[in-house]
Amino acid sequence: MDLRALTDRLPAGAVITDPDIVAGYRQDRALDPGAGTPVAVVRATGTADVRETLRWADDHRVPVVPRGAGSGLSGGATALDGGIVLSTERMRDIRIDPVTRTAVVQPGLLNAEVKRAAAEHGLWYPPDPSSFEICSIGGNAATNAGGLCCVKYGVTTDYILGMEVVLADGSVVRLGGPRLKDSAGLALTKMFVGSEGTLGVITELTLRLLPAQPAQCTVVASFATLTAATEAILAITGALRPAMLEFMDSVAINAVEDEMRMGLDRGAAALLVARSDAPGEHAAQEARVMVEACRAAGATEVFETADAEEAEAFTAARRFAIPAVERIGRLLLEDVGVPLPRLGDLVTGVAEIARRNDVTVSVIAHAGDGNTHPLIVHDPDDAGETERAHRAFGEIMDLALTLDGTITGEHGVGRLKKAWLPDQLGPDVMALTRRIKDALDPHGILNPGAVL
Amino acid sequence: MDLRALTDRLPAGAVITDPDIVAGYRQDRALDPGAGTPVAVVRATGTADVRETLRWADDHRVPVVPRGAGSGLSGGATALDGGIVLSTERMRDIRIDPVTRTAVVQPGLLNAEVKRAAAEHGLWYPPDPSSFEICSIGGNAATNAGGLCCVKYGVTTDYILGMEVVLADGSVVRLGGPRLKDSAGLALTKMFVGSEGTLGVITELTLRLLPAQPAQCTVVASFATLTAATEAILAITGALRPAMLEFMDSVAINAVEDEMRMGLDRGAAALLVARSDAPGEHAAQEARVMVEACRAAGATEVFETADAEEAEAFTAARRFAIPAVERIGRLLLEDVGVPLPRLGDLVTGVAEIARRNDVTVSVIAHAGDGNTHPLIVHDPDDAGETERAHRAFGEIMDLALTLDGTITGEHGVGRLKKAWLPDQLGPDVMALTRRIKDALDPHGILNPGAVL
Repeated sequence: MDLRALTDRLPAGAVITDPDIVAGYRQDRALDPGAGTPVAVVRATGTADVRETLRWADDHRVPVVPRGAGSGLSGGATALDGGIVLSTERMRDIRIDPVTRTAVVQPGLLNAEVKRAAAEHGLWYPPDPSSFEICSIGGNAATNAGGLCCVKYGVTTDYILGMEVVLADGSVVRLGGPRLKDSAGLALTKMFVGSEGTLGVITELTLRLLPAQPAQCTVVASFATLTAATEAILAITGALRPAMLEFMDSVAINAVEDEMRMGLDRGAAALLVARSDAPGEHAAQEARVMVEACRAAGATEVFETADAEEAEAFTAARRFAIPAVERIGRLLLEDVGVPLPRLGDLVTGVAEIARRNDVTVSVIAHAGDGNTHPLIVHDPDDAGETERAHRAFGEIMDLALTLDGTITGEHGVGRLKKAWLPDQLGPDVMALTRRIKDALDPHGILNPGAVL
Repeated sequence: MDLRALTDRLPAGAVITDPDIVAGYRQDRALDPGAGTPVAVVRATGTADVRETLRWADDHRVPVVPRGAGSGLSGGATALDGGIVLSTERMRDIRIDPVTRTAVVQPGLLNAEVKRAAAEHGLWYPPDPSSFEICSIGGNAATNAGGLCCVKYGVTTDYILGMEVVLADGSVVRLGGPRLKDSAGLALTKMFVGSEGTLGVITELTLRLLPAQPAQCTVVASFATLTAATEAILAITGALRPAMLEFMDSVAINAVEDEMRMGLDRGAAALLVARSDAPGEHAAQEARVMVEACRAAGATEVFETADAEEAEAFTAARRFAIPAVERIGRLLLEDVGVPLPRLGDLVTGVAEIARRNDVTVSVIAHAGDGNTHPLIVHDPDDAGETERAHRAFGEIMDLALTLDGTITGEHGVGRLKKAWLPDQLGPDVMALTRRIKDALDPHGILNPGAVL
């Protein structure tokens, strides 16, 4: 492979072949054991570098795996032998326009950095994956990432008004723009959101921002049974639109408590963290409705606070659940979602799958929108347990599909879930997807093996 | 053409060839003078009829123009000589699920009927085109329709979670579903929204609903100059997120007053109708902020009401502006949008274009999101005036593009605006659009001549 031709087109230092550095780009947080070793990592400094890399790769039929911050949980950025990993981590410009409430950002900024830049203007970028301090805004767009506030405020696609994207052949297109309404032509912006690097590489995003989030009231409730907790969830969402409604099961509670020592109820079967950000005293009113709903569903303990720091401690506990459970063992991380009335069936069904396969599965969830993360814990050095874990992984997705659900609510399909995608979409939708993929990437250089 | 083969596949009465009835399907509300005469109208009774029609049409290479309620304003449903008009007006089922706050609807229901069905369950379908009592939900999806509440609540695509769509070859695919979050595969649902019948025919929609809209406070303000009005708009949107912020110019005010006799200020250069639906007394607080913003910008008269009926009269007046101005003469209807800070430049620029071309242009606008409807009035029997009107039509789109705007915010491109689409999107995005169109509709039977 003539890497020289690529190196010559890019700024000094953009193409990395040092094996020690390259090794750090082989996997994302999914730790895909099937990861290959790329011939080089390109750390693009701007759109021109992305364009030149794709032109070269398309000419030479070299697979390119686009990568944001590498925090993906589905193996969407698993490197391929003989391929290029194209990282956008160095593309970090941001411009905020407070008058139109928009931000124009490059993909390498972390979600938290976008939030902070917006906050300096009294504005708010809502989508908040639990990993918001380590995940990039470009990766958020590529996976249509969700988070905790999505139950009220929607997901990443709802905040993307436009983008610049480099196609497989290196052509650079600008889609949408800083307009709240735009019906001119196909909704191409929306099509690239969630396309996981299979259709193009996003080099700039125009984001919609909101006024700063109002003050909040937070409710924390413990339950002795999973059923009581899912009943409370339905009662809350039936009564109002919470700004957050999070769930942790017993395994997650104890794993978090082991690390954070904040006095969580270790004996509880489930913990809910709910929030209202209704204006003024309406937040307290909604909090009271949520407290009553939890009590009526049989909560063993209910706690309410308007103190931002105290509330943030519980939210941080919930966000810390994945790293905390990860300390018990290697995780296979699910992202299944179901319509809310089926949430109870999903949670109890997952417990049954765990029992049947003799593996530990901890369930945490963005409960208010039916999006759950069963975490399948296993020891990768124990072949039998690993096999049972993988069996449970598939069975949980199968279960979600029988409940009219999705195999992935916010992490994307990547490589880890692609075997189940046809079960969800069916052959006609898969064929339609393939037609679009082939039309946009005829040589199949963009993230081959992901999604499709 | 072997229409018999089509008739045989469809229920009795579904295929209409009676010239008097067919004539009523030649044009939508854009009254495209280039409309042809179709060989037949198919009034589908369900998905199977759509499937059979497209299979037959694809086999015989017959162009098919999908049609909702025929209320489109861009000629997206202009009939073609020798083609079929495929109407979904008879597909009118709806199911509401209050627990998941979703509705599954067939495309033929009117927007107002969807709103009413949701309201029976205490729920709200927000998108509200001014034509909501005569436009279909399928047409809303096909154009990504907007409306008055979009400034706070977003447009049609923000409320579509899933759909069933029939592709050009007659294959029926289901996309998305009743899940608030779903990252499984490409965002195909979003791609079909706004595709104006060029990629497939939507036969079912899964809509997201909200809890019923809270009580509202409405502010009506008159201004002596356009500039004062656009200053007030910027001051209001800078201070809060109104639930509605509508604009009418002098021509529209007088045309509406001629018809409705409600005491609008005939001497005003512009009228704003603004609304807050913040909870409880916050609506009145926000209304006071808007009143002050209007006064500070120099409003000659400001009026505030919490009375729903009184407020609805002003909203109805604004919604009635297009039919009212239509009584002065034939309209060429614009739908240009710009980023809010450029709204003043757009409005004054349109006035200059009207002067230069010696035609009357009335501007009404969903001002809060920068989406305006300059209405170019002309006498179709006056060739000179008609020519000047068409020149102004193009100049207004050119102006919007120089202001970083769009040629269509919510009506779609259809046939009337397609000559300007390449100016907005550029050759690369047009080529990308064409690649997707060709991949999905290789024989080009779906709404040929629209958009592309």
